[in-house]
Amino acid sequence: MSRSGTTSNVHPPRGFRFRTAAAGIKRPGRRDLAVIVSDVPAVAAGVFTTNAVEAAPVRLGKRMIASGAAQAIVANSGNANACTGHRGMKDAREMTRTVARAFGLSADAVLVCSTGVIGEPLPMDRIVPGIQRLAEAPDEPPLAVARAIMTTDTYPKALSRRLRIGGKVVTMTGIAKGAGMIAPNMATMLGFMLTGTGVSPAALDRVVRYATDRSFNRLTVDGDRSTNDTVLALANGQAGNRVLTTRSPEYGKFQDHAAALFWDLARMIADDGEGARHLIEVHVTGAASRADAHRVAMAVADSNLVKTAVYGRDANWGRILCAAGYSGARLRESRTRIDINGIRVMDGGLTTRRDAAAARAMKKREVLITIHLGVGRAEGKALTCDLTEDYIKINAEYRS
Amino acid sequence: MSRSGTTSNVHPPRGFRFRTAAAGIKRPGRRDLAVIVSDVPAVAAGVFTTNAVEAAPVRLGKRMIASGAAQAIVANSGNANACTGHRGMKDAREMTRTVARAFGLSADAVLVCSTGVIGEPLPMDRIVPGIQRLAEAPDEPPLAVARAIMTTDTYPKALSRRLRIGGKVVTMTGIAKGAGMIAPNMATMLGFMLTGTGVSPAALDRVVRYATDRSFNRLTVDGDRSTNDTVLALANGQAGNRVLTTRSPEYGKFQDHAAALFWDLARMIADDGEGARHLIEVHVTGAASRADAHRVAMAVADSNLVKTAVYGRDANWGRILCAAGYSGARLRESRTRIDINGIRVMDGGLTTRRDAAAARAMKKREVLITIHLGVGRAEGKALTCDLTEDYIKINAEYRS
Repeated sequence: MSRSGTTSNVHPPRGFRFRTAAAGIKRPGRRDLAVIVSDVPAVAAGVFTTNAVEAAPVRLGKRMIASGAAQAIVANSGNANACTGHRGMKDAREMTRTVARAFGLSADAVLVCSTGVIGEPLPMDRIVPGIQRLAEAPDEPPLAVARAIMTTDTYPKALSRRLRIGGKVVTMTGIAKGAGMIAPNMATMLGFMLTGTGVSPAALDRVVRYATDRSFNRLTVDGDRSTNDTVLALANGQAGNRVLTTRSPEYGKFQDHAAALFWDLARMIADDGEGARHLIEVHVTGAASRADAHRVAMAVADSNLVKTAVYGRDANWGRILCAAGYSGARLRESRTRIDINGIRVMDGGLTTRRDAAAARAMKKREVLITIHLGVGRAEGKALTCDLTEDYIKINAEYRS
Repeated sequence: MSRSGTTSNVHPPRGFRFRTAAAGIKRPGRRDLAVIVSDVPAVAAGVFTTNAVEAAPVRLGKRMIASGAAQAIVANSGNANACTGHRGMKDAREMTRTVARAFGLSADAVLVCSTGVIGEPLPMDRIVPGIQRLAEAPDEPPLAVARAIMTTDTYPKALSRRLRIGGKVVTMTGIAKGAGMIAPNMATMLGFMLTGTGVSPAALDRVVRYATDRSFNRLTVDGDRSTNDTVLALANGQAGNRVLTTRSPEYGKFQDHAAALFWDLARMIADDGEGARHLIEVHVTGAASRADAHRVAMAVADSNLVKTAVYGRDANWGRILCAAGYSGARLRESRTRIDINGIRVMDGGLTTRRDAAAARAMKKREVLITIHLGVGRAEGKALTCDLTEDYIKINAEYRS
């Protein structure tokens, strides 16, 4: 993955329109409003933040997704509509109604996402006309939507995959935003998957959960889960394949492609973490269970000490082993091994005295940390980025 | 608490000697070796890191403390003797034996603590003569020991309390080191309590656990628990009070003083967190349970976003509420309240629009964040510091 590579290979799936507008939510001129509309009603599924403090669009989305159907997603950046009380719910509903009216849809077919500052009411006097302009706006490539939902992201995140399902070539397009930091303030990880594949509601729901669990849920920029994190999928069946169910022979293939798409988007988010100089991928092997493997991977990825060491290109395996140690997972120190970008820096709990070689290998933008726990066969992964002075600057000065 | 205040009010409790030496463990000349010796065998208790990766002195200490008796503590900075395999255990034992020989004690009466770089064997050729010099060295004030065990701490941490137990005035002296960061590399939080009070082993054990749970266990600099964290207490009975047991009427008083002493030391550690500009104290009220209150306090104290906001003097209550939300604790958003240094910034889940006043109140070195969850009566606290560019610099460049 390279920064420039993110702008290619993005195709609009059949029967979806992508549009953006500048509503002036936070500052004038910036395109901060986007809509994704399917030509026909689509099967819909979603996964939402587990934070006990839920933004209004999350509360609304959880209810609406239960029907398993939707035709549009409207999203704004600049304001998260979180901690906004009753008014926030009213505003979120008004956004969906305005889209419905403007595009001739049913109001309960519109999903809404918001990201940005929290605790401030949405400027509905600017958002409503903005949505009305969307109805007259020209169709754009999916990347335009990715750009409109950016907050502190430095580049838009979108990717497509093409695969053959039921004899038809189908497109699966993913759009995401950071985790510039998973923050309440700018806030939110958003991920959308649009596909022309015909899929049953139960199958799409399972695919989204499976793929999210193996991608966005393995991603940590700073350990803070936002009030707005949302992953939504729409599948409109316009590819003309026979409808895919969880029992279809190609279900596994479809699910794996979705997981791979989400993983690649999650890597982009980590790569573009606030102030990041390095994308960090943590692989854990030899764990007693998959849960243990994930615990270790996330503890290492969440460790400020590991993240600053990577920033300093210091092959500091002690900090990695220490994080594994407090993760709660079972390990046997005398059987542990740690590799950094292919250089074994620790073996059997002892230094290999190859720190200097590993430090040189850390000059790459991508740093792969592999930890073997020596107690079983389970594996797990996590994604993060390094922690730099720029992260502090961005977050100490965000609102001022 | 003020930085200058830390150097006063430190008294040696009766019958304890404090000595230091420069062993040249990491660099020549610096006093990096310390011993605390009681004139008579003392009752001993300890609490150790829960990290699955335990440094050799922690492994040894856990075994030795089981007897409930000890007469000396030897501690070194500059090297943590962690991830050093069999050799590490041998070296830790040799440190205790050398102290025993030099001071005429039984080897199983000597406890050992190490803090510093991990993964490197101890330079025993310099440590053994260093310990021998300790036997000939003059007695020093407790603060000298606090200074000798410093790693990235910018000032030594020691305090005394005097209280009346069984008709006698007893002294309780605490010595600690940071959490300059709770890091594996410099590593470790160390805390020692020395007192002339006569206490039963069971009572001292309970006091140390109680006081640690309410102080050092509520402290987080960066969420990383080290391989070496250790709290030790020696009570030598030289004050001549009737021996205190858990059933004594004054047990509660003694326990509360110990908890207050440890809390004050924990505040110093947070205040002196690496790169810190602000000490942050988080108070949670209105929680459904004490566990929930602690969960919220620790989640807020661990949040990089909250910590950078305090650094930026941004009364960013959204980040605080968000951390409370993902802590796993029960809360009712519409009943929550947040105060920062006495200014209510959020009430019932909504902004009070007093962010500017709160930002002014955050100019103080100490920032108190109070969060009311609105679901019960339980309370809890946590201590941390802000997250600054200097933290990144210190930790990205520590080994290089």
